[in-house]
Formats: sequence, structure tokens, C-alpha cells
Amino acid sequence: MKITAMHITPIALGDPPLLNAAGLHAPYCLRTVVEIVTDNGLTGLAEVPGSAATNAKLEAARSIAVGRDPLNWHALRAALRAHFGNEGAAARGDKPWDQRSLVQVESALDVACLDVAGKAFGVPVATLLGGVVRERVPYSAYLFYKYEGAGGELAFGTDPAATGWAAARQKAALDPEGIVAQAQAMVREFGFESIKLKGGCFEPAQEVAAMKALRAAFGPEVPLRLDPNALWTVETSIRCGRELEGVLEYLEDPCRGQEAMAQVRLAVKLPLATNMCTTSFDDLPGSVQTGAEDVILTDHHFWGGVRSSMELAAWCRIHGRGVSMHSNNHGGISLAAMTHLGAAMPNLSYALDTHYPWQWEDIIVGGRMRIEGGCVTLPKGPGLGVELDRAALARAHENFVRCGLKERNDEIEMQKKVPGWKFAQTRW
Amino acid sequence: MKITAMHITPIALGDPPLLNAAGLHAPYCLRTVVEIVTDNGLTGLAEVPGSAATNAKLEAARSIAVGRDPLNWHALRAALRAHFGNEGAAARGDKPWDQRSLVQVESALDVACLDVAGKAFGVPVATLLGGVVRERVPYSAYLFYKYEGAGGELAFGTDPAATGWAAARQKAALDPEGIVAQAQAMVREFGFESIKLKGGCFEPAQEVAAMKALRAAFGPEVPLRLDPNALWTVETSIRCGRELEGVLEYLEDPCRGQEAMAQVRLAVKLPLATNMCTTSFDDLPGSVQTGAEDVILTDHHFWGGVRSSMELAAWCRIHGRGVSMHSNNHGGISLAAMTHLGAAMPNLSYALDTHYPWQWEDIIVGGRMRIEGGCVTLPKGPGLGVELDRAALARAHENFVRCGLKERNDEIEMQKKVPGWKFAQTRW
Repeated sequence: MKITAMHITPIALGDPPLLNAAGLHAPYCLRTVVEIVTDNGLTGLAEVPGSAATNAKLEAARSIAVGRDPLNWHALRAALRAHFGNEGAAARGDKPWDQRSLVQVESALDVACLDVAGKAFGVPVATLLGGVVRERVPYSAYLFYKYEGAGGELAFGTDPAATGWAAARQKAALDPEGIVAQAQAMVREFGFESIKLKGGCFEPAQEVAAMKALRAAFGPEVPLRLDPNALWTVETSIRCGRELEGVLEYLEDPCRGQEAMAQVRLAVKLPLATNMCTTSFDDLPGSVQTGAEDVILTDHHFWGGVRSSMELAAWCRIHGRGVSMHSNNHGGISLAAMTHLGAAMPNLSYALDTHYPWQWEDIIVGGRMRIEGGCVTLPKGPGLGVELDRAALARAHENFVRCGLKERNDEIEMQKKVPGWKFAQTRW
Repeated sequence: MKITAMHITPIALGDPPLLNAAGLHAPYCLRTVVEIVTDNGLTGLAEVPGSAATNAKLEAARSIAVGRDPLNWHALRAALRAHFGNEGAAARGDKPWDQRSLVQVESALDVACLDVAGKAFGVPVATLLGGVVRERVPYSAYLFYKYEGAGGELAFGTDPAATGWAAARQKAALDPEGIVAQAQAMVREFGFESIKLKGGCFEPAQEVAAMKALRAAFGPEVPLRLDPNALWTVETSIRCGRELEGVLEYLEDPCRGQEAMAQVRLAVKLPLATNMCTTSFDDLPGSVQTGAEDVILTDHHFWGGVRSSMELAAWCRIHGRGVSMHSNNHGGISLAAMTHLGAAMPNLSYALDTHYPWQWEDIIVGGRMRIEGGCVTLPKGPGLGVELDRAALARAHENFVRCGLKERNDEIEMQKKVPGWKFAQTRW
């Protein structure tokens, strides 16, 4: 089998004005859809975060991928690395989201090749990762502080005709009460059984209060997580962490860097999780040396694919780390890949993060995947089990062209609401 | 797909009187052949070291395996562990060979299920491990001190009509000259480009002299290894290790335990390898903590299968360890599995060990696999690419019944030649 073509389609999906440590989400989130086509008529899909840098590398990867056997991932990956060189962990950048791009190219091709392999063999991707451990993969509610607004074409406007979660999704949530209301609406719609709040937006005391309000509203049986995206100092992390002992299942990236995280971990009786200080294989020896975290959030987009994420999971088992999963905004192809990974990972310890409830558009046949009882059921059918809806893909690409965004930049979006606002690596 | 039957066949293959730290090889080495049969008519093969303990566990595993999907390894492995419990690293034992048996059951079923999967999908096992990195997998010449004798039916006798390597294989090798002659005959026959000596048999000075004699005979372009199987003290290891700096590509297990190995590693400018102090996933944190070795020898029979060996290889990449491969006596099914693993492992750093030249019988269709230019070429055909020769299997099983051996016990064999000989964990 040989890859005969590789299609790269940047898309934009509507996204509400969600707040985070780096600023404010734009009315659209950017993704890039990657398709490989093989000489026996199969198509493999993948989706990665959209950025000009990644798209350029994907374009450059086409001539490396075309002509190669999609079943020989080791050879294709070696060719990619020979061409692009190996990126060090230093290139991750200081933002909450990872800015390395070679790992995303590897992820796109890893997933697309597995989708092809699954279709060729007539088995799900999860089978090719060693077998299905769970058919229903649990996700966590992902709460955001947000301004009022729907996002997408409506931008900061709202659709007064919306009902249910679609209406709740438009509402502002800028204090503990707003966060609890958002959680209640999201849980009512999707049945999530654990809840995460994206923090790093307000004074730590307010975010601690929000977690306590969630605890009061949902009770101890619903695990809670808070992610200040490393905006806190070590001192603040210890003080707030102690306040949250017994309240959270884990505190994610309170502060920046393995050494700082390790200091907090020693001082606070609360598991620490990360997708910011231990984010690549190069970081793992430092994780052992420092004892930076209890839980690593994998994300197949940034760990080089679902196979590499399985390697990370094995490492976590060996070194006593729990495994959870990070998410950026994404569509159904990524949700399918995340679900196969979650279905196959023996030591998945926590419900996965997903931004999926914040979107309402998708590019897959049959429309949006369903989240029921907080879980996504492993798609039926071989490979990823999802197919491209060409008309929806075309619309999402038109959105991309029309919205004019080329990179995620939450600082610029924030400045539209709060003139002069600046991102800071450490804020409180 | 479902497993409908599991056949477990103990066999014995002729083996010459090879010396090692634990004594002397018996005239036969024991192996167990495992076949799983599926409801769609496929057969998956595997081979593990033969012992009553492992055979009993394999028998007990049958009821767990039958009825399960061979494509869902994670579920089958979880069921095995639920039944047998998890064996700690402590059960490895003090002999040069690993005496844990659950890992061998897991290895047998991992390999047999992959053989089935490869046949079902029409691809080699190496493809299911991520893809073929090399078609020709390099092996190392594996030299042994030995008494004169052919082994097998001839036991300590010899066949005077033998020629070539078959004649050389019968000869005694009890000093550096004998070892060099053995190496020359073996390299002439198989084309090996690296050489290992099983040490731990004679005074360290004699074994150091043997390595220097090999170096003088083969020159610096042929990498050399010595494996005293942990019989040396730390002091002896440092003294002899220093003598071998610049002579060996690595020194394997000079002494016992991670702490002792780490002391030697700090004192000697020579890579240290192990298949005795870091032998399970439970040992890996200690390996990081102590810095016990530079190279880990995987062996899919003792690491729980080829998929687990790939996990070990990933760990070695992350933590800067080289990867080589250990061998006990084995037949062609194991050689095929080792070759698929070696073909798929991106960071295989060294030629693999194999005892295969010491055997002359096999149980696979077409007779013995060929080693040419020191390499085994990845078998053609799906799965492992080897099939059982039923008549040869029956003969090998008859050998097993007739020879009366139930366990490897090199001490008893040694006592037949050297009355009163006793194994000691540390000798020099």
C-alpha cells in the first residue's frame, strides 16, 4: 500500500468568547484537517490545531509522505525527522497551548496512517493500539470563565432563539455563581461526571471560591479540577493548593516549570497534574528527577500521535504517574482519535478533557458525535470510524478564509475587550 | 474472532555441553510451543523456555484465553493478571536465566495473538509493532566455554563424520585458544560481525585473556562482549572492567544488583549492559535512581512479549539507555519473533544475542532459519512468517518425553562432570 495524495485543509469552527490565562478565544477556533489517500482507494483522516507554522510543515511533509507505505509508521516518522530535524522541548513556548509543530505533523500522519490501517484490516484504531479496554470513554465537563456571546458568525452577539445548552453556552460566567450555572447546564446536557475549570483568569481567591462553589453544588462524588495554566507563583500555589485539599481530584499546572511544580507538590496534599511542565519525551527524565507531578495529561496532537501517547502511558505506569488527557478546541476527527486512545489505554486514570461542547459545528458525516452520560462511545466501523462530510468541510474552510485568522492569538482578542491587556507568564 | 483452542507442547532440542555461571547445559534444552487456534481457522504460534512451572501456568491460562478475541491483547492480559496476580521482580531468582513464569505466559500469548493478527490482516508482526525499520536483523556470535561433546542423542559423545561448524560445535573450548577457534568457525559459518562470550566459568583473568585473544584475532572492527553473569565482586568487576576498556563494546552483568552495577559503572569507562539487574518494568525506576547500566538487554520471553519489549525500547530511548537483546536456547519460532522485534525497534543499538547456532534441530516448516552475513532476514509471509512442521514437533516432543528433563538445572549437569560442584551467586 502506498500514499498517493495528502490533502491539507485549514478550517475554522465557531467558538464562544472563552477566557483563559492567555486572553480570550476568538469567535473561531482554527483546526487543520489532514487526509491521506492510498493507491488502494482508502482515505485516512486526522485533525490538528490550526496554525500557519504547522500548516507550512504539513505542506512540506507531503512530498515525504507521498509514495510511502502508511503501514510503516517507523519509516515515515524517521523520514519526517530526517527532513525537519528534531525539535527540543524548549520550543513549546510560554502559552498555555503547545507551539511545537513537528509533533503535530507526526500526530497528523500517525493518526491518518492508523485510520488507513484500521480500514485496510477492518478493525478500529483502538484495536491497533492493543485492544479496547473500555467501549465508553469518560470525558470531563470543561468550564470556562467567559464573556456573554455565542462566537462564530454571531461573534460577541447572542442568538435569543437558542434553548437549553445552546442558550447557556452564550451566557457570561465571570464569578463563582456563573461558573456553577454553566456547570449545571453542561452536566444536564452531557451527563459529565467530573468537572474541570479553566482558571488563570481571575484573582486566585475567586477561582478557589469557584471550586468550592462547585463542590457545594455537586457534592464530593463529582471530581473537580482547576487549571490556572501556570499563572501562580509557588507561594500562591501552595496557599491555594492547601485551601483546595480535599476539594480537587487534581490541581493542574498551578505554576511554571518542573522545579516549581515539585516544590508545590511537596508542600500540598493534593495531586498535581501537568500539560505544561512535562510535555515531551525529553521532559520525562526531569520529571523523575524533580518529582514535578502526579498526573500527566497526554494530548496526542502534542506527543506525536496516539502511538506515542501509548508510549507515554506506559512510562506513566512505570513511574507511578496517573494519566489524563488535555484538550484544545477540536472537531469530531480529533474527538474520535482521543476516544480510540482513551478506549485502548489500560491505565487511563481520569476522565478526558474536551472542548467539544463549546462547538456546535462539525465536519464529519452524521453531524456531531454524542456525549451521553459523560462518555463518548467508541465509534463503530473500522479505523477512526468517522468520515468527512465534504459539504461541511467546505463550509468550515470558507469560515477559515472569511474569518481571516491565521494563528491563535488570545492576547489580541482580549485587547478588543480590555484595551492594553498583556499576557504574563506569572500573574499572581 | 475468538480463540477456540490452545495447544501447549513441551519439546526438547539437542544442546551441546555449554558451560556457564550456573553450571553446564544438559544434552537437551527445553522449550514449550504454544499454539492458539481461532474460530476463523487461523493458528498463532509462540515459543517460550520450557519449565514445569511455566507449563502449568500455560495450562491454567487456557481457560482464560479460549473464547477471547486474540485482537484484544489488553483485555486478555488483564484477565491473565486478574487470574494469576502480579509477580514482583523479586521472583526472578538468582540464576543467569529469569525464573518468573507469568511474564512467559504473557509473552506466549502476546506473540501468538500477534501471529494471528498478522495472518488475519496479511501483514508481518513487525508491521503491527509500528513498521519494519530493517529487513535484515543483525545477530551476534554467541561463544561458550564448553566440554567436548555434541549434545542431543550423542550426549557427551561426538559424531566423527561431522564437518564444518557441525564438527567445530562438538569441540571443547576451555581456554582462550579454544574460544578463538570456536569464534572463527562460527563466524565462518554464519558471518557474524560481533561476538559475545558467555563468561563466569573461569578465573576472571582467563576470561579477560580470552577477550583480548578475540580482539587480537578479529581486530577492532568486530565488537566484543563478555557476560560473567554477575559472578564477580564489585572490586573484580572494576579491575577487569578497566582491563577491558577499549576492548569491549559492553561488559554485561559483571556483578549482581543495580547498586553494585552502578558502582562499577562510575569506575569503569566501558558501557555496562544487563539482563540480570534491570529485568522488569518494576526495576526501571531503580535503574534511573542508581544509574545501573548503559544498555538493557530485552528478551520478549521475560518482558511479557514483543509489545512490552517495544515499551521497554521506548523507555530506553527516553532515559538514554541502549537496547540489545538477550537469548536463551531457542528454536525457530522464537527466532522469528526476535527477528520481528529487531526489525521493528527503531532504537535497537546492538546486534541481538542468539543461541540458535548451537542447535541443529528445529520444528518449523522448511527446516532451520538461515543466518547469513550475521543477519536473519525478516521472514516473508504474514504474522511471524513461520509454520509448524508437525512431524518435527512430534519428534521434539518425543525427545522431551524420552530425555526425562523437566526443568533446566545446570548444577546437576555440572555435578556429573565435576562431582560436588555448587552454584554460587558471587564467585570471584
